[in-house]
Parts: sequence; structure tokens; C-alpha cells
Amino acid sequence: MYTLVLIRHGKSVWNLENKFTGWTDVDLSDSGLQEAREAGKILRKHGYQFNLAYTSVLKRSIRTLWIVLHEMNLEWIPVYKSWRLNERHYGSLQGLNKEETAKKYGEDQVHQWRRSMDVKPPPLEKSDDRYEADDPRYAELQDGEYPLTENLKDTEARMLKYWHETIAPSIKEGKKVLISAHGNTLRGLMQYLDHISPDGIANLNIPTGIPLVYELDQDLKPIRHFYLGIEGEVPEGEIDTYIEKHRS
Amino acid sequence: MYTLVLIRHGKSVWNLENKFTGWTDVDLSDSGLQEAREAGKILRKHGYQFNLAYTSVLKRSIRTLWIVLHEMNLEWIPVYKSWRLNERHYGSLQGLNKEETAKKYGEDQVHQWRRSMDVKPPPLEKSDDRYEADDPRYAELQDGEYPLTENLKDTEARMLKYWHETIAPSIKEGKKVLISAHGNTLRGLMQYLDHISPDGIANLNIPTGIPLVYELDQDLKPIRHFYLGIEGEVPEGEIDTYIEKHRS
Repeated sequence: MYTLVLIRHGKSVWNLENKFTGWTDVDLSDSGLQEAREAGKILRKHGYQFNLAYTSVLKRSIRTLWIVLHEMNLEWIPVYKSWRLNERHYGSLQGLNKEETAKKYGEDQVHQWRRSMDVKPPPLEKSDDRYEADDPRYAELQDGEYPLTENLKDTEARMLKYWHETIAPSIKEGKKVLISAHGNTLRGLMQYLDHISPDGIANLNIPTGIPLVYELDQDLKPIRHFYLGIEGEVPEGEIDTYIEKHRS
Repeated sequence: MYTLVLIRHGKSVWNLENKFTGWTDVDLSDSGLQEAREAGKILRKHGYQFNLAYTSVLKRSIRTLWIVLHEMNLEWIPVYKSWRLNERHYGSLQGLNKEETAKKYGEDQVHQWRRSMDVKPPPLEKSDDRYEADDPRYAELQDGEYPLTENLKDTEARMLKYWHETIAPSIKEGKKVLISAHGNTLRGLMQYLDHISPDGIANLNIPTGIPLVYELDQDLKPIRHFYLGIEGEVPEGEIDTYIEKHRS
């Protein structure tokens, strides 16, 4: 049996300002830093160990990971960063306030943009300042890989390539793996691992900064999941029940 | 021409307590954290960019690097950690107060242990709690590679293996490299790159938390060196003059 731990980064400055973030490299807020410290402490308290960690190339997930590793005295473990673990690209919504956007386009439209598997937010123009394909962190992307917008399916597909080629093999080698990533990359991974229905995934919200433990069998099929939250705040069986109810 | 930047970690808790540290995984002090932030700010102010960073498996150098990268908005660059960049192993002196040790063994003996190329501090016993060969961070070491004590020659030899096999090739590929490491690994690297005499190296003290910029020719031979310190605090030409005077 393998253990895999997922963590969604602590609250960023734009989480607090209620803005669409996507690939914008927004920093953690003070409460996000605190969430990361708590996550590290609880993992340490429960005796978790990791040999390897994966994260995106965005500072809110990298710093969450660094803080967790520091709290666990595991600064020394190898950390691999990939754009494939980046948050979903939010197209031309990036930087806009969610409430103002809802007023302009309607709640339904915004809910679809945010939670549907298939609907993509309006794309960026290549002339837009927010189109950062020439940022050196994306130098390894092939032509056309830098997204102008993404739906959850797109995000899941580019993330799963990294899962299959890199993360899953390291787990099967016996490495204890921690993934620090984003709401939508983690939702995509959970949908894949647990066969969650589109409806189930649309309404699945992963809390920030709470380690989510997956116990996996030898084929990486989930046996059990639970959040490692502050006692009483996140009922331990809740996520298992939710997933059971929403299998596709 | 290539640019390489070296940085000795900020002051650790044991730097302040005047203890021999070596491979003990002591954390940065508050002033060490501040030094790291200053280093990152000055590198950013001067427009430095890095594609790649190397550090040891000890948290004082890793955290110095993390803080520098954060100040530079470069959290996303690949970071490789190797025990070969660890501080010199100080044998059974690790954890002892430097002043008390000097009282017990004499100033001369301690100066030799600290600065000589050839003299090794008394070795650890394998039964000593400070012998941490079974720490998972050292799992990749071959039999006999975990040191019981080291002189500067030993440190230099194991560090240079990593330089030749990993760091130097990445610089020649055109990567802009930052190395965050320790007093003695950096002294060893400088001795190798600049052919500094044993006397010169015995008296060379690298300040904590001040980026040291190396401009290298195509064969990685140093052309020029300078510290990126707060203006006036570290005279820019000083290190060049020192090295010129102490070639072997």
C-alpha cells in the first residue's frame, strides 16, 4: 500500500481579494502562510515522512511546500516543479474580480466558467500583457502548449501527462510523495483517481492548506482518503462519503 | 563569459552561540534570515537572473537559497541539493563551544582544526549520536562516504566531484547558476578556481549572506570577482586583491 499526500496551497492575496488567478504568480497571504505552517505541523505531529515532493512553477504552491517541509525538518528532500501542476489557466478572466464578473455576465455563466468540465473562459489575446509565454519558466513548452484559456478537461489532460510519466512511477518505486498544487489540478487528479462524475467534481471544493491523505493499493487505486485537519473542523470520513456518492 | 554567484548561508543559531556546526542541521537565526532577504534584494536590484541553483542538504543553506529566490521572484527555478555541498564535517567538535574548546586544547590547536588544509578534528565514534549515517538524507552515500571527520582537503575533494560532474557542465551549457553553501565548501571551491595558496585559504573568511559574483571565461577560469554587499561595507576590489596576493 502506498500513501500519497495532496495539499492545496494556502490562501493567496487574490483568494482574499476574490479575483480569478489562474497562471498569475500571486503570492500567499498572511493567512495562507499560517495555513501552510499548520499543515506542516499536523503532518509532523502525525509522523508523516516524505522522500520526494512535486509542485507547480507558481510561488503560492511552491512556498506552501517550502513551509510544510520546513515545519517537518524535511527541507532537504528533492522537489520537482512543473508547469503541468499549475492552476487551470483562466483566460481573460485572470485578474478580474469574481463578484464584478458575475454582475456583468451573470452568476450562471460564472459558475459554468468556474466549475464546468467543458466550458472555457474567454481566451487571452496573444497581445495581452497577461500572455506570458516568453517567461523563462515556460521556456520548455512546445509551440501551442502555453494556454490562452483552459477548461478543467484541458487542465486535467496536461496534469495527467506528468502524473503518468513522473509522479506515478516514483510512487510505485516506493517513494513517499507530497504534491503541493492548486484547486483545479488537484480536482482533476482526484477525478481521475476516484472516477468522480462531472457533477461530483463541479461541486467538490478542496479546502486550502489541509493535507489530503490518499491510501492507494499497488495499482494506485484509492482505498481510503481523509483530511488531516484540525480536529473536528473537517470530519474525517466526509471526503470518502462524498466520493462514494459521486462516482461516474 | 559566464557569471556564477556564490553565497554563504546567513548566520545560524550556532554561529551566534559560537559552536562548531559541521553537518549538524542547525537553523538560521533571525539575523541570518535577514541577511538572506538582503542578499536577495541586492541581487534583484542589480538585475541578476538565475536558471538553476545548487545547495547542500542542510537547512541553513537551503533556507538562505529559498529566501533569496523568493526576493527575486525566482521560486520556480530548479534547485538541486547535494550532501557534497555540505559544510566540512567537524568530527567530535560538532556542538562544542569554540571558546571552551580553545581553553581546553589551546588557541593554536583550534586554529589548526579550523583553518588548516590537512589537520582533521578528532573523529566521531560510530556509536556517537552525532553520527547520522542512517539519516535518510544520506541514503545515497556509499560505504565509507559518510565522514567521521574532515580536513579542508577532504571537503574540497568531495565537493569538487559534484562541481566537475554536475555544476560546471550546467554553467558551460549556458545556465546562470547560484550556489548557496557553507564557509568551507565555498573556500574549497575558491581555492580550486583561483589557485589560492594554503596560507591564503587559511586566512580567507567569506562573509555570511553576501553574494560573491564570479565572472568566468569559457574555460571557467575566473576573470573578476566581487561581493555584492551594501555599498561601502565590502570594498568591491578587496577580494580580487586578496586573491592576487595569495596565488599558489
